[in-house]
Amino acid sequence: MDQADVMDLVMRLRAVEDELAIRNLAARFTDAVNERDAGAFRQLWSHDAVWEIGPPLAARAEGIDAIVGMMARLLAPRTLFIQLTHSGVVTFTGEDTATSRFTEREHEKGQQDYYENLAVYRDVIARGPDGWRFKRRYYEYRYLDSSAFAGAVFDPGPSPEASA
Amino acid sequence: MDQADVMDLVMRLRAVEDELAIRNLAARFTDAVNERDAGAFRQLWSHDAVWEIGPPLAARAEGIDAIVGMMARLLAPRTLFIQLTHSGVVTFTGEDTATSRFTEREHEKGQQDYYENLAVYRDVIARGPDGWRFKRRYYEYRYLDSSAFAGAVFDPGPSPEASA
Amino acid sequence: MDQADVMDLVMRLRAVEDELAIRNLAARFTDAVNERDAGAFRQLWSHDAVWEIGPPLAARAEGIDAIVGMMARLLAPRTLFIQLTHSGVVTFTGEDTATSRFTEREHEKGQQDYYENLAVYRDVIARGPDGWRFKRRYYEYRYLDSSAFAGAVFDPGPSPEASA
Repeated sequence: MDQADVMDLVMRLRAVEDELAIRNLAARFTDAVNERDAGAFRQLWSHDAVWEIGPPLAARAEGIDAIVGMMARLLAPRTLFIQLTHSGVVTFTGEDTATSRFTEREHEKGQQDYYENLAVYRDVIARGPDGWRFKRRYYEYRYLDSSAFAGAVFDPGPSPEASA
Repeated sequence: MDQADVMDLVMRLRAVEDELAIRNLAARFTDAVNERDAGAFRQLWSHDAVWEIGPPLAARAEGIDAIVGMMARLLAPRTLFIQLTHSGVVTFTGEDTATSRFTEREHEKGQQDYYENLAVYRDVIARGPDGWRFKRRYYEYRYLDSSAFAGAVFDPGPSPEASA
Repeated sequence: MDQADVMDLVMRLRAVEDELAIRNLAARFTDAVNERDAGAFRQLWSHDAVWEIGPPLAARAEGIDAIVGMMARLLAPRTLFIQLTHSGVVTFTGEDTATSRFTEREHEKGQQDYYENLAVYRDVIARGPDGWRFKRRYYEYRYLDSSAFAGAVFDPGPSPEASA
Protein backbone atom coordinates (compact mmCIF):
# COMPACT_ATOMS: atom_id res chain seq x y z
CA MET A 1 0.00 0.00 0.00
CA ASP A 2 1.67 3.17 -1.13
CA GLN A 3 1.15 6.71 0.08
CA ALA A 4 -1.53 7.51 -2.51
CA ASP A 5 -3.61 4.50 -1.43
CA VAL A 6 -3.38 5.56 2.19
CA MET A 7 -4.46 9.10 1.39
CA ASP A 8 -7.41 7.73 -0.59
CA LEU A 9 -8.44 5.60 2.39
CA VAL A 10 -8.17 8.56 4.77
CA MET A 11 -10.27 10.76 2.47
CA ARG A 12 -12.97 8.10 2.11
CA LEU A 13 -13.15 7.58 5.86
CA ARG A 14 -13.41 11.30 6.40
CA ALA A 15 -16.28 11.53 3.89
CA VAL A 16 -18.16 8.87 5.85
CA GLU A 17 -17.48 10.61 9.17
CA ASP A 18 -18.62 13.94 7.75
CA GLU A 19 -21.88 12.53 6.44
CA LEU A 20 -22.61 10.84 9.77
CA ALA A 21 -21.73 14.02 11.69
CA ILE A 22 -24.22 16.06 9.65
CA ARG A 23 -26.95 13.44 10.03
CA ASN A 24 -26.22 13.45 13.75
CA LEU A 25 -26.54 17.22 13.88
CA ALA A 26 -30.13 16.99 12.59
CA ALA A 27 -30.87 14.08 14.94
CA ARG A 28 -29.44 15.98 17.92
CA PHE A 29 -31.61 18.99 17.05
CA THR A 30 -34.72 16.82 17.26
CA ASP A 31 -33.55 15.14 20.45
CA ALA A 32 -32.76 18.49 22.08
CA VAL A 33 -36.20 19.98 21.35
CA ASN A 34 -38.04 16.80 22.33
CA GLU A 35 -36.04 16.56 25.58
CA ARG A 36 -36.20 20.37 26.02
CA ASP A 37 -32.46 20.46 26.57
CA ALA A 38 -31.30 24.04 25.92
CA GLY A 39 -27.66 23.19 26.61
CA ALA A 40 -27.59 20.45 23.97
CA PHE A 41 -29.49 22.71 21.56
CA ARG A 42 -26.91 25.49 21.89
CA GLN A 43 -24.10 23.21 20.73
CA LEU A 44 -25.70 22.67 17.31
CA TRP A 45 -25.21 26.18 15.92
CA SER A 46 -22.39 28.35 14.70
CA HIS A 47 -22.09 31.64 16.54
CA ASP A 48 -23.64 33.71 13.73
CA ALA A 49 -26.31 31.19 12.66
CA VAL A 50 -29.84 31.99 11.48
CA TRP A 51 -32.84 29.88 12.48
CA GLU A 52 -35.93 30.64 10.48
CA ILE A 53 -39.42 29.17 10.47
CA GLY A 54 -41.38 30.02 7.36
CA PRO A 55 -45.02 31.02 6.91
CA PRO A 56 -47.68 30.64 8.18
CA LEU A 57 -46.08 30.48 11.66
CA ALA A 58 -43.04 32.55 10.80
CA ALA A 59 -40.31 33.21 13.34
CA ARG A 60 -36.64 34.12 12.97
CA ALA A 61 -33.58 34.40 15.21
CA GLU A 62 -30.05 35.45 14.34
CA GLY A 63 -27.05 34.64 16.51
CA ILE A 64 -26.75 31.76 18.95
CA ASP A 65 -28.19 33.54 22.01
CA ALA A 66 -31.29 34.66 20.10
CA ILE A 67 -31.67 31.12 18.70
CA VAL A 68 -31.57 29.50 22.12
CA GLY A 69 -34.00 32.16 23.37
CA MET A 70 -36.41 31.44 20.52
CA MET A 71 -36.35 27.71 21.31
CA ALA A 72 -37.25 28.41 24.96
CA ARG A 73 -39.99 30.86 23.98
CA LEU A 74 -41.54 28.46 21.46
CA LEU A 75 -41.52 25.48 23.82
CA ALA A 76 -42.63 27.20 27.03
CA PRO A 77 -46.41 27.26 26.47
CA ARG A 78 -46.62 23.76 25.00
CA THR A 79 -47.64 20.74 27.06
CA LEU A 80 -46.76 18.51 24.11
CA PHE A 81 -44.10 19.11 21.50
CA ILE A 82 -42.65 16.24 19.52
CA GLN A 83 -40.65 16.66 16.35
CA LEU A 84 -40.22 13.66 14.06
CA THR A 85 -37.23 13.72 11.71
CA HIS A 86 -37.37 11.35 8.78
CA SER A 87 -34.83 10.61 6.07
CA GLY A 88 -32.73 13.40 4.61
CA VAL A 89 -30.18 14.15 1.94
CA VAL A 90 -26.77 15.72 2.50
CA THR A 91 -24.84 17.48 -0.29
CA PHE A 92 -21.25 18.65 0.18
CA THR A 93 -20.66 22.05 -1.41
CA GLY A 94 -17.02 22.33 -0.33
CA GLU A 95 -14.57 20.61 1.97
CA ASP A 96 -16.07 22.36 5.00
CA THR A 97 -19.59 23.24 3.81
CA ALA A 98 -22.72 21.28 3.03
CA THR A 99 -26.46 21.62 2.57
CA SER A 100 -29.12 19.19 3.75
CA ARG A 101 -32.86 18.66 3.57
CA PHE A 102 -34.82 16.59 6.08
CA THR A 103 -38.52 15.73 5.98
CA GLU A 104 -40.21 16.71 9.25
CA ARG A 105 -43.42 16.35 11.18
CA GLU A 106 -44.38 18.00 14.45
CA HIS A 107 -47.17 17.53 16.96
CA GLU A 108 -47.98 20.30 19.39
CA LYS A 109 -50.53 21.02 22.08
CA GLY A 110 -50.56 24.30 23.94
CA GLN A 111 -53.06 25.69 26.40
CA GLN A 112 -55.94 25.92 23.93
CA ASP A 113 -54.16 25.33 20.65
CA TYR A 114 -53.04 22.33 18.66
CA TYR A 115 -51.18 21.60 15.49
CA GLU A 116 -49.61 18.93 13.47
CA ASN A 117 -47.60 19.77 10.41
CA LEU A 118 -45.48 18.39 7.58
CA ALA A 119 -42.42 20.33 6.54
CA VAL A 120 -38.93 20.25 5.07
CA TYR A 121 -35.88 21.55 6.93
CA ARG A 122 -33.48 23.21 4.47
CA ASP A 123 -30.05 23.60 6.02
CA VAL A 124 -26.65 25.14 5.46
CA ILE A 125 -23.93 23.49 7.56
CA ALA A 126 -20.30 24.44 8.05
CA ARG A 127 -17.33 22.79 9.73
CA GLY A 128 -15.85 25.01 12.41
CA PRO A 129 -13.18 24.48 15.05
CA ASP A 130 -15.61 22.29 17.04
CA GLY A 131 -16.98 20.30 14.13
CA TRP A 132 -20.06 20.64 11.93
CA ARG A 133 -22.64 23.25 12.99
CA PHE A 134 -25.79 24.73 11.49
CA LYS A 135 -25.22 28.07 9.76
CA ARG A 136 -28.88 28.21 8.81
CA ARG A 137 -32.02 26.14 9.23
CA TYR A 138 -35.19 27.07 7.38
CA TYR A 139 -38.41 25.22 8.25
CA GLU A 140 -40.58 25.17 5.15
CA TYR A 141 -44.20 24.26 5.90
CA ARG A 142 -46.00 21.99 3.47
CA TYR A 143 -49.08 21.18 5.59
CA LEU A 144 -50.56 22.52 8.80
CA ASP A 145 -53.59 21.24 10.66
CA SER A 146 -54.66 23.20 13.74
CA SER A 147 -57.67 21.01 14.59
CA ALA A 148 -57.96 19.85 18.18
CA PHE A 149 -56.94 16.24 18.78
CA ALA A 150 -58.28 13.86 21.35
CA GLY A 151 -55.31 11.99 22.77
CA ALA A 152 -53.71 12.26 26.20
CA VAL A 153 -50.35 13.92 26.81
CA PHE A 154 -47.83 12.36 29.18
CA ASP A 155 -45.15 14.20 31.03
CA PRO A 156 -41.98 12.15 30.65
CA GLY A 157 -41.27 11.98 34.39
CA PRO A 158 -38.39 9.92 35.73
CA SER A 159 -37.25 7.00 33.61
CA PRO A 160 -36.21 3.70 35.19
CA GLU A 161 -32.90 4.18 36.96
CA ALA A 162 -30.76 2.09 34.63
CA SER A 163 -32.12 3.48 31.38
CA ALA A 164 -30.68 6.16 29.14
CA MET B 1 0.45 -3.42 9.35
CA ASP B 2 0.79 -6.12 6.75
CA GLN B 3 -1.05 -6.52 3.48
CA ALA B 4 -3.81 -8.67 4.97
CA ASP B 5 -4.59 -6.01 7.60
CA VAL B 6 -4.82 -3.34 4.93
CA MET B 7 -7.16 -5.45 2.82
CA ASP B 8 -9.35 -6.02 5.86
CA LEU B 9 -9.50 -2.28 6.50
CA VAL B 10 -10.40 -1.56 2.88
CA MET B 11 -13.15 -4.19 2.93
CA ARG B 12 -14.63 -2.82 6.15
CA LEU B 13 -14.62 0.73 4.83
CA ARG B 14 -16.29 -0.42 1.64
CA ALA B 15 -19.01 -2.19 3.64
CA VAL B 16 -19.74 1.05 5.49
CA GLU B 17 -19.81 3.06 2.26
CA ASP B 18 -22.12 0.54 0.61
CA GLU B 19 -24.59 0.61 3.49
CA LEU B 20 -24.65 4.41 3.51
CA ALA B 21 -25.05 4.53 -0.28
CA ILE B 22 -28.11 2.27 -0.13
CA ARG B 23 -29.65 4.26 2.74
CA ASN B 24 -28.99 7.40 0.70
CA LEU B 25 -30.73 5.89 -2.31
CA ALA B 26 -33.94 5.50 -0.29
CA ALA B 27 -33.53 9.00 1.18
CA ARG B 28 -32.93 10.52 -2.25
CA PHE B 29 -36.09 8.80 -3.55
CA THR B 30 -38.15 10.51 -0.85
CA ASP B 31 -36.45 13.84 -1.40
CA ALA B 32 -36.99 13.64 -5.17
CA VAL B 33 -40.74 12.96 -4.88
CA ASN B 34 -41.23 15.56 -2.14
CA GLU B 35 -39.31 18.16 -4.18
CA ARG B 36 -40.91 16.89 -7.42
CA ASP B 37 -37.49 16.66 -9.02
CA ALA B 38 -37.78 14.30 -12.00
CA GLY B 39 -34.09 14.61 -12.87
CA ALA B 40 -32.98 13.49 -9.41
CA PHE B 41 -35.59 10.71 -9.45
CA ARG B 42 -34.26 9.31 -12.73
CA GLN B 43 -30.80 8.81 -11.27
CA LEU B 44 -32.04 6.32 -8.66
CA TRP B 45 -32.94 3.47 -10.99
CA SER B 46 -31.15 0.92 -13.10
CA HIS B 47 -32.14 1.01 -16.76
CA ASP B 48 -34.35 -2.08 -16.57
CA ALA B 49 -35.83 -1.43 -13.11
CA VAL B 50 -39.38 -2.20 -12.01
CA TRP B 51 -41.37 0.15 -9.76
CA GLU B 52 -44.52 -1.40 -8.39
CA ILE B 53 -47.17 -0.11 -6.01
CA GLY B 54 -49.28 -2.89 -4.53
CA PRO B 55 -53.04 -3.06 -3.91
CA PRO B 56 -55.34 -1.29 -3.29
CA LEU B 57 -53.84 1.52 -5.42
CA ALA B 58 -51.81 -0.70 -7.69
CA ALA B 59 -49.55 0.75 -10.36
CA ARG B 60 -46.51 -0.60 -12.17
CA ALA B 61 -43.81 0.68 -14.50
CA GLU B 62 -40.93 -1.18 -16.12
CA GLY B 63 -37.86 0.56 -17.49
CA ILE B 64 -36.50 3.90 -16.45
CA ASP B 65 -38.54 6.06 -18.87
CA ALA B 66 -41.81 4.44 -17.82
CA ILE B 67 -40.80 4.85 -14.16
CA VAL B 68 -40.11 8.56 -14.52
CA GLY B 69 -43.38 8.92 -16.45
CA MET B 70 -45.30 7.16 -13.68
CA MET B 71 -43.84 9.50 -11.07
CA ALA B 72 -44.95 12.56 -13.07
CA ARG B 73 -48.42 11.10 -13.67
CA LEU B 74 -48.93 10.23 -9.99
CA LEU B 75 -47.77 13.62 -8.71
CA ALA B 76 -49.47 15.89 -11.29
CA PRO B 77 -53.00 16.03 -9.77
CA ARG B 78 -51.83 16.34 -6.17
CA THR B 79 -51.63 19.66 -4.37
CA LEU B 80 -49.95 17.91 -1.43
CA PHE B 81 -47.71 14.89 -1.56
CA ILE B 82 -45.26 14.16 1.22
CA GLN B 83 -43.56 10.83 1.71
CA LEU B 84 -42.01 10.08 5.10
CA THR B 85 -39.25 7.45 5.16
CA HIS B 86 -38.45 5.94 8.54
CA SER B 87 -35.81 3.45 9.58
CA GLY B 88 -34.94 0.55 7.33
CA VAL B 89 -32.86 -2.59 7.13
CA VAL B 90 -30.31 -3.41 4.43
CA THR B 91 -29.19 -6.97 3.69
CA PHE B 92 -26.33 -7.72 1.32
CA THR B 93 -27.07 -10.73 -0.88
CA GLY B 94 -23.81 -10.57 -2.84
CA GLU B 95 -20.90 -8.22 -3.39
CA ASP B 96 -22.99 -6.07 -5.75
CA THR B 97 -26.55 -6.87 -4.70
CA ALA B 98 -28.70 -6.14 -1.68
CA THR B 99 -32.27 -6.01 -0.47
CA SER B 100 -33.81 -3.42 1.82
CA ARG B 101 -37.06 -2.68 3.58
CA PHE B 102 -38.09 0.81 4.73
CA THR B 103 -41.19 1.77 6.72
CA GLU B 104 -43.13 4.50 4.93
CA ARG B 105 -45.98 6.92 5.38
CA GLU B 106 -47.52 9.22 2.79
CA HIS B 107 -49.91 12.14 2.92
CA GLU B 108 -51.74 13.19 -0.22
CA LYS B 109 -54.38 15.69 -1.22
CA GLY B 110 -55.67 15.85 -4.76
CA GLN B 111 -58.55 17.83 -6.23
CA GLN B 112 -61.27 16.09 -4.26
CA ASP B 113 -59.38 13.18 -2.80
CA TYR B 114 -57.19 12.55 0.20
CA TYR B 115 -55.17 9.76 1.69
CA GLU B 116 -52.69 8.90 4.29
CA ASN B 117 -51.13 5.48 4.40
CA LEU B 118 -48.64 3.23 6.15
CA ALA B 119 -46.55 0.91 4.04
CA VAL B 120 -43.29 -0.98 3.63
CA TYR B 121 -40.98 -0.48 0.65
CA ARG B 122 -39.38 -3.79 -0.31
CA ASP B 123 -36.38 -3.22 -2.53
CA VAL B 124 -33.82 -5.01 -4.64
CA ILE B 125 -30.68 -2.92 -5.24
CA ALA B 126 -27.69 -3.56 -7.47
CA ARG B 127 -24.33 -1.90 -7.95
CA GLY B 128 -23.81 -0.81 -11.54
CA PRO B 129 -21.16 1.28 -13.27
CA ASP B 130 -22.57 4.45 -11.62
CA GLY B 131 -23.08 3.03 -8.15
CA TRP B 132 -26.04 1.48 -6.33
CA ARG B 133 -29.42 1.72 -8.09
CA PHE B 134 -32.89 0.31 -7.49
CA LYS B 135 -33.63 -2.78 -9.56
CA ARG B 136 -37.05 -3.03 -7.99
CA ARG B 137 -39.16 -1.17 -5.46
CA TYR B 138 -42.44 -2.65 -4.25
CA TYR B 139 -44.71 -0.48 -2.09
CA GLU B 140 -46.68 -2.79 0.17
CA TYR B 141 -49.68 -1.09 1.77
CA ARG B 142 -50.47 -1.88 5.37
CA TYR B 143 -53.01 0.87 6.07
CA LEU B 144 -54.93 3.36 3.93
CA ASP B 145 -57.25 6.11 5.10
CA SER B 146 -59.01 8.14 2.41
CA SER B 147 -60.95 10.39 4.79
CA ALA B 148 -60.80 14.12 4.12
CA PHE B 149 -58.46 16.06 6.41
CA ALA B 150 -58.81 19.63 7.55
CA GLY B 151 -55.34 21.17 7.38
CA ALA B 152 -54.01 23.77 4.98
CA VAL B 153 -51.54 22.95 2.20
CA PHE B 154 -48.63 25.28 1.48
CA ASP B 155 -46.86 25.62 -1.78
CA PRO B 156 -43.13 25.63 -1.02
CA GLY B 157 -42.43 28.85 -2.93
CA PRO B 158 -38.98 30.43 -2.84
CA SER B 159 -36.77 29.65 0.15
CA PRO B 160 -34.57 32.31 1.72
CA GLU B 161 -31.72 33.09 -0.61
CA ALA B 162 -28.94 31.59 1.50
CA SER B 163 -30.70 28.33 2.35
CA ALA B 164 -30.38 24.97 0.67
CA MET C 1 2.12 6.22 7.49
CA ASP C 2 3.49 5.08 10.81
CA GLN C 3 1.95 2.74 13.33
CA ALA C 4 0.21 5.51 15.28
CA ASP C 5 -1.54 6.77 12.13
CA VAL C 6 -2.73 3.28 11.32
CA MET C 7 -4.09 2.77 14.83
CA ASP C 8 -5.91 6.09 14.58
CA LEU C 9 -7.47 5.03 11.29
CA VAL C 10 -8.56 1.70 12.74
CA MET C 11 -10.12 3.37 15.78
CA ARG C 12 -12.01 5.88 13.64
CA LEU C 13 -13.35 3.15 11.37
CA ARG C 14 -14.43 1.16 14.40
CA ALA C 15 -16.29 4.18 15.80
CA VAL C 16 -18.21 4.49 12.52
CA GLU C 17 -19.01 0.77 12.47
CA ASP C 18 -20.18 0.87 16.08
CA GLU C 19 -22.52 3.79 15.48
CA LEU C 20 -24.02 2.14 12.40
CA ALA C 21 -24.40 -1.17 14.26
CA ILE C 22 -26.39 0.53 17.04
CA ARG C 23 -28.57 2.42 14.58
CA ASN C 24 -29.15 -0.87 12.80
CA LEU C 25 -30.16 -2.53 16.05
CA ALA C 26 -33.01 -0.01 16.49
CA ALA C 27 -33.96 -0.35 12.81
CA ARG C 28 -33.98 -4.16 13.04
CA PHE C 29 -36.24 -3.96 16.10
CA THR C 30 -38.80 -1.98 14.11
CA ASP C 31 -38.50 -4.25 11.10
CA ALA C 32 -38.90 -7.37 13.27
CA VAL C 33 -42.11 -6.14 14.94
CA ASN C 34 -43.56 -4.80 11.68
CA GLU C 35 -42.77 -8.08 9.91
CA ARG C 36 -43.76 -10.08 13.04
CA ASP C 37 -40.50 -12.01 12.83
CA ALA C 38 -39.85 -13.51 16.27
CA GLY C 39 -36.56 -15.08 15.19
CA ALA C 40 -35.12 -11.75 14.06
CA PHE C 41 -36.48 -10.08 17.20
CA ARG C 42 -34.67 -12.56 19.47
CA GLN C 43 -31.29 -11.68 18.01
CA LEU C 44 -31.53 -8.06 19.18
CA TRP C 45 -31.24 -8.68 22.91
CA SER C 46 -28.60 -9.71 25.40
CA HIS C 47 -29.53 -12.79 27.41
CA ASP C 48 -30.39 -10.83 30.57
CA ALA C 49 -32.03 -7.83 28.87
CA VAL C 50 -35.03 -5.89 30.18
CA TRP C 51 -37.78 -4.61 27.85
CA GLU C 52 -40.10 -2.16 29.50
CA ILE C 53 -43.05 -0.17 28.23
CA GLY C 54 -43.96 2.73 30.48
CA PRO C 55 -47.35 4.04 31.59
CA PRO C 56 -50.16 4.19 30.63
CA LEU C 57 -49.85 0.82 28.85
CA ALA C 58 -47.10 -0.56 31.07
CA ALA C 59 -45.56 -3.96 30.41
CA ARG C 60 -42.22 -5.47 31.36
CA ALA C 61 -40.19 -8.57 30.53
CA GLU C 62 -36.82 -9.67 31.85
CA GLY C 63 -34.64 -12.21 30.06
CA ILE C 64 -34.68 -13.02 26.39
CA ASP C 65 -37.35 -15.73 26.49
CA ALA C 66 -39.76 -13.50 28.40
CA ILE C 67 -39.02 -10.65 25.97
CA VAL C 68 -39.80 -12.75 22.90
CA GLY C 69 -42.93 -14.02 24.64
CA MET C 70 -44.06 -10.48 25.39
CA MET C 71 -43.61 -9.48 21.74
CA ALA C 72 -45.80 -12.40 20.62
CA ARG C 73 -48.45 -11.64 23.25
CA LEU C 74 -48.59 -7.95 22.36
CA LEU C 75 -48.83 -8.53 18.61
CA ALA C 76 -51.25 -11.49 18.59
CA PRO C 77 -54.57 -9.59 18.95
CA ARG C 78 -53.64 -6.81 16.56
CA THR C 79 -54.75 -6.73 12.94
CA LEU C 80 -52.54 -3.68 12.37
CA PHE C 81 -49.31 -2.85 14.14
CA ILE C 82 -46.78 -0.52 12.55
CA GLN C 83 -43.94 1.09 14.44
CA LEU C 84 -42.24 4.12 12.89
CA THR C 85 -38.69 4.86 14.06
CA HIS C 86 -37.39 8.35 13.38
CA SER C 87 -34.01 9.89 14.02
CA GLY C 88 -32.08 9.04 17.17
CA VAL C 89 -28.95 9.90 19.09
CA VAL C 90 -26.27 7.44 20.20
CA THR C 91 -23.86 8.18 23.05
CA PHE C 92 -20.93 5.93 23.83
CA THR C 93 -20.45 5.46 27.57
CA GLY C 94 -17.48 3.09 27.29
CA GLU C 95 -15.69 1.04 24.68
CA ASP C 96 -18.40 -1.61 24.78
CA THR C 97 -21.41 0.30 26.12
CA ALA C 98 -23.69 3.01 24.81
CA THR C 99 -27.06 4.64 25.32
CA SER C 100 -29.49 5.79 22.66
CA ARG C 101 -32.79 7.59 22.28
CA PHE C 102 -35.07 7.22 19.27
CA THR C 103 -38.32 9.10 18.57
CA GLU C 104 -41.15 6.67 17.88
CA ARG C 105 -44.71 6.48 16.67
CA GLU C 106 -46.98 3.47 16.56
CA HIS C 107 -50.32 2.72 14.94
CA GLU C 108 -52.40 -0.17 16.22
CA LYS C 109 -55.78 -1.72 15.56
CA GLY C 110 -57.00 -4.66 17.57
CA GLN C 111 -60.41 -6.33 17.66
CA GLN C 112 -62.28 -3.32 19.03
CA ASP C 113 -59.42 -1.08 20.05
CA TYR C 114 -57.19 1.44 18.36
CA TYR C 115 -54.28 3.61 19.22
CA GLU C 116 -51.66 5.84 17.86
CA ASN C 117 -48.90 7.19 20.03
CA LEU C 118 -45.76 9.29 20.17
CA ALA C 119 -42.92 8.09 22.36
CA VAL C 120 -39.19 7.97 22.98
CA TYR C 121 -37.24 4.72 23.22
CA ARG C 122 -34.49 5.07 25.84
CA ASP C 123 -31.91 2.33 25.43
CA VAL C 124 -28.85 0.81 27.03
CA ILE C 125 -26.75 -1.20 24.56
CA ALA C 126 -23.73 -3.40 25.15
CA ARG C 127 -21.25 -5.15 22.90
CA GLY C 128 -21.18 -8.87 23.55
CA PRO C 129 -19.50 -11.79 21.81
CA ASP C 130 -22.04 -11.51 18.93
CA GLY C 131 -21.97 -7.74 18.58
CA TRP C 132 -24.14 -4.93 19.95
CA ARG C 133 -27.33 -5.98 21.75
CA PHE C 134 -30.01 -4.21 23.76
CA LYS C 135 -29.49 -4.52 27.52
CA ARG C 136 -32.58 -2.41 28.12
CA ARG C 137 -35.26 -0.64 26.13
CA TYR C 138 -37.73 1.66 27.84
CA TYR C 139 -40.67 2.99 25.81
CA GLU C 140 -41.62 6.36 27.27
CA TYR C 141 -45.05 7.56 26.14
CA ARG C 142 -45.49 11.22 25.32
CA TYR C 143 -48.90 11.04 23.62
CA LEU C 144 -51.61 8.41 23.27
CA ASP C 145 -54.80 8.63 21.26
CA SER C 146 -57.19 5.67 21.50
CA SER C 147 -59.85 7.10 19.18
CA ALA C 148 -61.13 4.82 16.45
CA PHE C 149 -59.72 5.56 12.99
CA ALA C 150 -61.43 5.03 9.67
CA GLY C 151 -58.81 3.58 7.35
CA ALA C 152 -58.55 0.07 5.92
CA VAL C 153 -55.95 -2.45 7.08
CA PHE C 154 -54.13 -4.63 4.55
CA ASP C 155 -52.62 -7.98 5.25
CA PRO C 156 -49.18 -7.95 3.63
CA GLY C 157 -49.77 -11.17 1.67
CA PRO C 158 -47.17 -12.45 -0.78
CA SER C 159 -44.85 -9.87 -2.34
CA PRO C 160 -43.83 -10.09 -5.98
CA GLU C 161 -41.46 -13.00 -6.45
CA ALA C 162 -38.32 -10.97 -7.12
CA SER C 163 -38.74 -8.48 -4.31
CA ALA C 164 -37.15 -8.47 -0.88
